[in-house]
Amino acid sequence: MAHAAVVEETNASDKVRAIYEDIKKTFGIPIVPNLFKAMAANPDYLQATWNQCKIVLGPGELTRREKELVALAVSATNNCEYCIRAHTAALKGLGVSNTAIVELMSVVGLFNQFNKFADGLRIEPDLGV
Amino acid sequence: MAHAAVVEETNASDKVRAIYEDIKKTFGIPIVPNLFKAMAANPDYLQATWNQCKIVLGPGELTRREKELVALAVSATNNCEYCIRAHTAALKGLGVSNTAIVELMSVVGLFNQFNKFADGLRIEPDLGV
Amino acid sequence: MAHAAVVEETNASDKVRAIYEDIKKTFGIPIVPNLFKAMAANPDYLQATWNQCKIVLGPGELTRREKELVALAVSATNNCEYCIRAHTAALKGLGVSNTAIVELMSVVGLFNQFNKFADGLRIEPDLGV
Amino acid sequence: MAHAAVVEETNASDKVRAIYEDIKKTFGIPIVPNLFKAMAANPDYLQATWNQCKIVLGPGELTRREKELVALAVSATNNCEYCIRAHTAALKGLGVSNTAIVELMSVVGLFNQFNKFADGLRIEPDLGV
Amino acid sequence: MAHAAVVEETNASDKVRAIYEDIKKTFGIPIVPNLFKAMAANPDYLQATWNQCKIVLGPGELTRREKELVALAVSATNNCEYCIRAHTAALKGLGVSNTAIVELMSVVGLFNQFNKFADGLRIEPDLGV
Amino acid sequence: MAHAAVVEETNASDKVRAIYEDIKKTFGIPIVPNLFKAMAANPDYLQATWNQCKIVLGPGELTRREKELVALAVSATNNCEYCIRAHTAALKGLGVSNTAIVELMSVVGLFNQFNKFADGLRIEPDLGV
Repeated sequence: MAHAAVVEETNASDKVRAIYEDIKKTFGIPIVPNLFKAMAANPDYLQATWNQCKIVLGPGELTRREKELVALAVSATNNCEYCIRAHTAALKGLGVSNTAIVELMSVVGLFNQFNKFADGLRIEPDLGV
Repeated sequence: MAHAAVVEETNASDKVRAIYEDIKKTFGIPIVPNLFKAMAANPDYLQATWNQCKIVLGPGELTRREKELVALAVSATNNCEYCIRAHTAALKGLGVSNTAIVELMSVVGLFNQFNKFADGLRIEPDLGV
Repeated sequence: MAHAAVVEETNASDKVRAIYEDIKKTFGIPIVPNLFKAMAANPDYLQATWNQCKIVLGPGELTRREKELVALAVSATNNCEYCIRAHTAALKGLGVSNTAIVELMSVVGLFNQFNKFADGLRIEPDLGV
Repeated sequence: MAHAAVVEETNASDKVRAIYEDIKKTFGIPIVPNLFKAMAANPDYLQATWNQCKIVLGPGELTRREKELVALAVSATNNCEYCIRAHTAALKGLGVSNTAIVELMSVVGLFNQFNKFADGLRIEPDLGV
Repeated sequence: MAHAAVVEETNASDKVRAIYEDIKKTFGIPIVPNLFKAMAANPDYLQATWNQCKIVLGPGELTRREKELVALAVSATNNCEYCIRAHTAALKGLGVSNTAIVELMSVVGLFNQFNKFADGLRIEPDLGV
Repeated sequence: MAHAAVVEETNASDKVRAIYEDIKKTFGIPIVPNLFKAMAANPDYLQATWNQCKIVLGPGELTRREKELVALAVSATNNCEYCIRAHTAALKGLGVSNTAIVELMSVVGLFNQFNKFADGLRIEPDLGV
């Protein structure tokens, strides 16, 4: 009883099912992530959030790989297990190696360290930035 | 009295000054960031941390641009003003546009949103990840 | 060995048992939450914290429902599994539906997103606020 | 140079200006918050995020007041100054008193305290929740 | 208008003034910290929180210095400027040097780094702990 | 597949094995913590991070016990399960009692509470700090 109810594909309304199909097609994955199946409790919310997600992850000045690296960095900083697992899998799907993921976490660790050291000592901004 | 004492270049010991020179050369910047000038209260700590920093930011499977994007994403998630300003400047120095930084923050915002939605509902990991 | 020792009702001193009874009566629940049973390692701390808790959750300008919604929003933002489970159960006990809890998490997600977007871009406060 | 560029109403494209008008009308406020003016660097992102925002804050099982209380609780937990100021002003616009805002922060403080106490001691979930 | 109203000593009720005197005496300081002056919006809340504070910071198995080091470490990790400044001053009052505070932040930085590295890679608990 | 690959002692290169021996000797423990075994994916990173760790935890103005108390306080504030378990075990190895660990968490809880109360109300720094 500790986990959220989700709307399974087999129980979904036509509206929700169409979004589910778009999610699978857009990400090239065979299942709908539970995150979106939980949002389906409110189909309008699912629709709006999925629209936002497609725009944020769609073409722009950052590459898809850069966005997935950032997604995992944010999820590690927040310690969200669901998201860490999902984005680790997504990065591996993009051909990122285990070693590169350790390298990413060395970067995440370094800057969490610097963030707290700087905040704790109230370090003044550098000239000109 | 609210900001940390820092060791200025003009007051630094020979050991510290040599590290300062390496920092400026490595990053290609004309000043030593205050973060490192605060670490110089303990020269051994400065030395070890700078060594770690050079390895983490040095050659690997991730590019320098990817590492700076992650640095800013982590700093934004932690709300470290000093680091946000420093890494925004660093990204601009790498030719990243203002629009791309807004795009980065749209990614950071999206995944902070998903992290908390997933945690709050205790969403189960997807099959196979 | 990874979980805290707790003082069970059957082993509690008279002082602690009286507080336990008050906790059960105040919340209208049949068991003492493990959180308070861990505090009982120091009965004076348990007493003071329970007194504070009763005042904070007691009558005021916010309703009990509003306080529980805030409790779950804070716990989700911090990703505290123990507290998320406890306050989800408390909200259901107040008649809040599963759909409303998803709605709450859509609000929590939205503002975590806006918080980080605003921090990362150092957005200036709006005029007059 | 430490703050994000924003798109002012006078410089906005027709598409962006129409969204700006909708924001002012929906919230009943005379200016467009800087948060949205920063999003306008990418009009499609602004559009999608504003659509999501309207659905999340629109009619549902939670009241507008409950959603604003949660917004301020989340922003305080994350220490986002921009958002704390904006939602404090919004709550006062809904008739919430200064005393009630202190009461809200007593709730926010209490549960941040309990979250960390529970996490640090790895307290086990209570039976049945 | 962005800061909380506080109850000044000269405007305080007898009940609040007595607590204020106890705060000054207990900490050996000439002024009442603004934190407590903001709590005085609800004298019962101030009373209960001050009682809790005295017990938590009072005699026990940890020393006063240890508790202040922890207070500053927590405040740095959360980036609470008010609290960082207050506890830095308190530590200096206990005879802790500037160098020791940099040392403390090197510890805080190290473990924030390890926390995120461990979380991001989902590192398994070591045997027997 | 959700946990990081680690380099076991039996598979380690000579360079990594020498670091592993130093870790066990320095901490006086019979096994190498998984944290370091994950870092060994990049031996240079392991080397630099271990060097930093030894300096940060080595002789200085703070005692080893103080540093471990801070390590657990930071890990609890960040809710890092791996680190909470490791530092709880380390503190017990230093002779710290279960009761003292509850006392530590009462301090951690108190200041997380004060941090968020102060931030949420934008409380002004006290005079002179």
